[in-house]
Amino acid sequence: MRADRPGAATRAKVWTLDGETEVRRRDSVVTEEPLEIRLSAGGRTQTVAVTMRTPGHDFELATGFLHAEGLLPGVPHQVSYCADVERADQKFNVVTVETDGPALEAPVRSGIVSSACGVCGSASLDALHERGLHRVADDVTVPVDVLYGLPDALRSAQGLFEVTGGLHAAGLFTADGSLVATREDVGRHNAVDKLVGWGVLGDRLPLSGTVLMVSGRCGYEIVQKAVAAGIPVVASVSAPSSLAVAVAEDFGVTLVGFLRGRRCNVYAGRERLRLPVPAAT
Amino acid sequence: MRADRPGAATRAKVWTLDGETEVRRRDSVVTEEPLEIRLSAGGRTQTVAVTMRTPGHDFELATGFLHAEGLLPGVPHQVSYCADVERADQKFNVVTVETDGPALEAPVRSGIVSSACGVCGSASLDALHERGLHRVADDVTVPVDVLYGLPDALRSAQGLFEVTGGLHAAGLFTADGSLVATREDVGRHNAVDKLVGWGVLGDRLPLSGTVLMVSGRCGYEIVQKAVAAGIPVVASVSAPSSLAVAVAEDFGVTLVGFLRGRRCNVYAGRERLRLPVPAAT
Repeated sequence: MRADRPGAATRAKVWTLDGETEVRRRDSVVTEEPLEIRLSAGGRTQTVAVTMRTPGHDFELATGFLHAEGLLPGVPHQVSYCADVERADQKFNVVTVETDGPALEAPVRSGIVSSACGVCGSASLDALHERGLHRVADDVTVPVDVLYGLPDALRSAQGLFEVTGGLHAAGLFTADGSLVATREDVGRHNAVDKLVGWGVLGDRLPLSGTVLMVSGRCGYEIVQKAVAAGIPVVASVSAPSSLAVAVAEDFGVTLVGFLRGRRCNVYAGRERLRLPVPAAT
Repeated sequence: MRADRPGAATRAKVWTLDGETEVRRRDSVVTEEPLEIRLSAGGRTQTVAVTMRTPGHDFELATGFLHAEGLLPGVPHQVSYCADVERADQKFNVVTVETDGPALEAPVRSGIVSSACGVCGSASLDALHERGLHRVADDVTVPVDVLYGLPDALRSAQGLFEVTGGLHAAGLFTADGSLVATREDVGRHNAVDKLVGWGVLGDRLPLSGTVLMVSGRCGYEIVQKAVAAGIPVVASVSAPSSLAVAVAEDFGVTLVGFLRGRRCNVYAGRERLRLPVPAAT
């Protein structure tokens, strides 16, 4: 059990695929962990939100969040990590902001993790298991040449992006690179929800044998949605978070990041990616 | 009152600043509007979430969101827009998913807008006024040359990004381009919350005379946080959303997007940006 303070970067082992070669190496990914924000006012302490965040400046984050929500009448007199958590690794993931002013009338709650999940990365994984999500058992393999072609294929399929430049895209592809469906939204998670919703409404789940390609970064939420939909491979043009890697490892999802040109990093599930067999010489 | 279906792109008037010249023109920005997602099960209908999204494939979004949250036991038998909204412009912003299975035990709610806000862009603005937010009255002006330098200054100040490639950054600058503070996070809104929290904890609000520079896109939430903190100028390297523009216009914030090289688009508050006075010839 980790009792020290989580850092902003987490070590990870990756395979870097470069053209037709691969190298195993150590890398860093940005840390993503839940933060529970509690407000203490008028003699009452309550959880206002649980948000995924990168550890660091947590007191500022909790204070700034409450301020933005209009829940801070003035400068807090104390901000502290909570001592009453059950597990040592949660200690730095719960912040209480104490302020003047009346207690909140109604319980306010937002965020993607309920308190039942606990508030640390491993507890977040446990919560997914408890929800009944299971490993994506799918022996599909994807040739790396197909993978390398996906960012361009997704961009070609994006209509609105060309007009506004403001949209995230998510595309679902078969293992041979054929586009199945693509959706766009200002929110990356919304674009994925639209794709999965398309699958649910058409009674197509699990989405076996598919690759989910997203623009931008890839965090916990995206991989969790892929697991729930039975998608075996998730790829993004940018960086994954530590918790995205952890969920991918735990639930048997292949996670690809920094997919640009004929190069990418593989953070989990390397076995589903197929390099060309070198010709015998 | 708009009763037709909102589109995925919204027309906007922008000033394009290019070096020391400017052009006024029409442009498109990606539409951002709230969507209220309701679940009907076991004879009970309740709001599960209100999320900002780009209109389009709303039934899929609502279904996919509920699926990801583990709230859908099977394929829904009906998904529909709600007819019982008070205002015609909300009609396409409320979706009910009807499914088998028991009613939810506890009310589930997440999202950044409460139902009291109503669920359309203009109602979201009204809600900010009702919360007591007011126009940012700040007559600071920023030379465009200072503005052009901010993306590089933010990148130089970013430590972790170099290591992990996975972080959003938010930086606070003075009108002469001096860095005041910078924060990073996997979430863009978290990075801004950290900055504002820094201001609140140091009793520095309102953050008059400052420029908030964010990496990536700029939506409703970012501009709302700037208004609450009294920040007069918000700039991003990428696209703003329609609702970000609306909030900026309504609350007197200067909103700059696509700030790259010596070029940018100004969506609101043009008067705070100063082009060099041409030398008399």
